[in-house]
Amino acid sequence: MELLDAFKWRYATKKYDSTKKVDQVLVDKIVEAARIAPTSSGLQPFEVFVITNQELKNKIVAAANGQEIVADCSHLLVFAAWDNYTAERIDQIYALTTTRREQPADRYKAYTDRLKNMYLNRPAEVNFAHTARQAYIAFGFAIAEAASLKVDTTPMEGFVNEEVDKLLNLSDKGLKSVTLLPIGYRDETNDWLVNLRKVRNPREKFVTEIA
Amino acid sequence: MELLDAFKWRYATKKYDSTKKVDQVLVDKIVEAARIAPTSSGLQPFEVFVITNQELKNKIVAAANGQEIVADCSHLLVFAAWDNYTAERIDQIYALTTTRREQPADRYKAYTDRLKNMYLNRPAEVNFAHTARQAYIAFGFAIAEAASLKVDTTPMEGFVNEEVDKLLNLSDKGLKSVTLLPIGYRDETNDWLVNLRKVRNPREKFVTEIA
Repeated sequence: MELLDAFKWRYATKKYDSTKKVDQVLVDKIVEAARIAPTSSGLQPFEVFVITNQELKNKIVAAANGQEIVADCSHLLVFAAWDNYTAERIDQIYALTTTRREQPADRYKAYTDRLKNMYLNRPAEVNFAHTARQAYIAFGFAIAEAASLKVDTTPMEGFVNEEVDKLLNLSDKGLKSVTLLPIGYRDETNDWLVNLRKVRNPREKFVTEIA
Repeated sequence: MELLDAFKWRYATKKYDSTKKVDQVLVDKIVEAARIAPTSSGLQPFEVFVITNQELKNKIVAAANGQEIVADCSHLLVFAAWDNYTAERIDQIYALTTTRREQPADRYKAYTDRLKNMYLNRPAEVNFAHTARQAYIAFGFAIAEAASLKVDTTPMEGFVNEEVDKLLNLSDKGLKSVTLLPIGYRDETNDWLVNLRKVRNPREKFVTEIA
């Protein structure tokens, strides 16, 4: 199947069949897609939480305006972005890059100095706006990978971020929740959205070609 | 090929073979992936510009710290998000949704009233932060689709947004540039990055499982 067909097949699932679990092999692939997604300067400024604990999922339902998909899905992914850039975080990933690419120790010094000069002089909220955007690319990659595997997903922003942050102790890790991604298998008979047409602006409204 | 293999194959191309053009059929698929990507409440608050005009590409090089990939790529995609939500924009997409889904005229009235109540009382910059995030999901979808077609891309944020906005007259359309996506075919002999290892944090640092 072409990826574009998978994109047409997918939709924001509104009702999961809670008896159907996604095989761990497939969950791992979806998380792997998020892990290898591109990020600005390769800083990879976010993490993913994979939640199957039912008690915790139920608590997150309460933080997500009572949306039962969070409870009924097979696995709940939470994307959480760095609350700020720090010298340690930048150094950590470039130390890894230096090792993996077998480069001289100072290979990325000038580059990381430039990054630090840019990021460490900005307010935390400006940096978080940037880290969150990176998480959205990976969020897209995870949704794409799931669709390619015929696993349903529901991209979600509608939740109280601070409550999810507390439930996962994200501030201890210097993280803030950005999006939720329930994954699982649609309940075709009870999902009100499954048979409604996908609506997007037509190509001519969406694209401008300048030749 | 599995999508995950395409994700491993892709990298941020640093040098394009300017003699190789991407077939229009493939460009259309990449744009289509962005068009059908999910967005918050289905508002689809962004547009895509596809630029092959060499003079304009050269001007954008100057707005992108002299990065020649913008000139050498086959097609340059620019992702531009709404500068704000407006009642007209919300009504437009839900009028389309009402028609396409053959719903009664007032089917989405309560829902769009809720959206307007939420978005129209916030500062433009808060709304733009939100529209930009949606564009990043579609950016991810376009990168994914390109990779699945073995078309190279370079996800780019490093440019002066205001200059690109001016070059494309984006303010007239109520848009602001968010990302650039040069697409084309790598110049294997001259791309310094092509043979360097892709580096990401290991799974155990990236993922937390709560079972």
